[in-house]
Amino acid sequence: MTLWVRYAHDGVEGFGTLEGEEIAVHAGEFFATPGPTGERLPRAAVRLLPPVRPGAFIGLWNNFHAAAAKQGNAIPEFPLYFLKNPRCVIGPGEAIRPPAAYDGKVLYEGELGIVIGQRVTAVDEAAAEAAIFGYTAVNDVTALDLLTADASFPQWARAKGCDSFGPIGPAIATGFDWRAARVTVALNGRVRQDYPLEDMILPPARIVSLVSREMTLHPGDVIACGTSLGALPMRPGMQVAVTIEGIGVLENPYAPSS
Amino acid sequence: MTLWVRYAHDGVEGFGTLEGEEIAVHAGEFFATPGPTGERLPRAAVRLLPPVRPGAFIGLWNNFHAAAAKQGNAIPEFPLYFLKNPRCVIGPGEAIRPPAAYDGKVLYEGELGIVIGQRVTAVDEAAAEAAIFGYTAVNDVTALDLLTADASFPQWARAKGCDSFGPIGPAIATGFDWRAARVTVALNGRVRQDYPLEDMILPPARIVSLVSREMTLHPGDVIACGTSLGALPMRPGMQVAVTIEGIGVLENPYAPSS
Repeated sequence: MTLWVRYAHDGVEGFGTLEGEEIAVHAGEFFATPGPTGERLPRAAVRLLPPVRPGAFIGLWNNFHAAAAKQGNAIPEFPLYFLKNPRCVIGPGEAIRPPAAYDGKVLYEGELGIVIGQRVTAVDEAAAEAAIFGYTAVNDVTALDLLTADASFPQWARAKGCDSFGPIGPAIATGFDWRAARVTVALNGRVRQDYPLEDMILPPARIVSLVSREMTLHPGDVIACGTSLGALPMRPGMQVAVTIEGIGVLENPYAPSS
Repeated sequence: MTLWVRYAHDGVEGFGTLEGEEIAVHAGEFFATPGPTGERLPRAAVRLLPPVRPGAFIGLWNNFHAAAAKQGNAIPEFPLYFLKNPRCVIGPGEAIRPPAAYDGKVLYEGELGIVIGQRVTAVDEAAAEAAIFGYTAVNDVTALDLLTADASFPQWARAKGCDSFGPIGPAIATGFDWRAARVTVALNGRVRQDYPLEDMILPPARIVSLVSREMTLHPGDVIACGTSLGALPMRPGMQVAVTIEGIGVLENPYAPSS
């Protein structure tokens, strides 16, 4: 398993592999031919950035059995998705800031994120599996009161696309066995969400295959696989940590402007 | 009024202003400092491309009084929008091709498209107006049976984001008075949609202002202002022409794979 990160160091952006407390700096085209430069940086000397800046950022709804059962939703055979504004992506440590004019509930949702590595159109599951570069952690932040503000039109894109509502990171793990992993979310250290990825309804390769039938996916696209039970509102000042063992801890403060 | 186009000529992409039957070639950063090179090309010698490749492609629902009245929808005070996959954009003349596995209804929807020219966050309507670079025509193509395929989750992103479902063009008109214009859509020459833009509920500057409160907009982003009455399914082989006087005719064949 390799952990890929992007970072800022002395005002310059770079990327590399995380090896213990060091980053092995790489150069080249990230999804094509990255190679080590030989330089190594202490992790503590850099600021981690979002590990990827997606061109498309897809989010699934209703993709875990436990949540579907509790909420009385039917089991979908095709991914039920919305598009998140891809520019809402922020990195580890950056503040989640709801719109100044919004004072409603803002939910965290800890999720597994698929990172696409190849351009794919209408591929089968085997080719879809091969097109997955790796996995990251996602906090699919949601302004709940915007989602439901209009009875005639559920506002998924709006509620989930506000600036800063897409924390991802801290790394992209390649060779990661999602079936054995859990997603946990802790608010100020208290675990509020903890679910096994094995409970997923549509697994990553099937999601990629089915979505690609209609919408070509490109390197760097991110697909958040949906969340399970325990997504709750955050309170100002809270630290929200999404942990997926093998990927790392994605921690962000929730900091509404006063 | 100036008409900006992008084109391919001898395998090279370029942009310029449309002046009668000629294009005055320009160079530089499109949204910053474009300047004429002095070169002129016959319009007939180039293939027009989408006039912009948006980073974000927003589409409004329920934004015309006539359609809201007929469908019994309340008048919204905030834009009700979905995100279209921005890579679904195609240019004039390119074929609209639904997914191979889909054999349901595919609707045209002729719309006015706002093209953003400046990065804006939480701006008032005057600043929003100033941030509008110009206007284009949009065919907001929709796979109707995907939109309604799951009773628990309307699939706006999926139904409107299929590859090729975003024809835009043929030009971006600056200094365009949308209040005086109509949108018409003709199928094989027969007009099926014809409505005045004056009937719009939320006008462009208000849309940009309100959306920017939550989601930063960037140069090149496109916002389709919603459609009015008369959006209907297309049949294979039809030519679909969206006309906005002052912008031009955006014509695309509807060509499902057999």
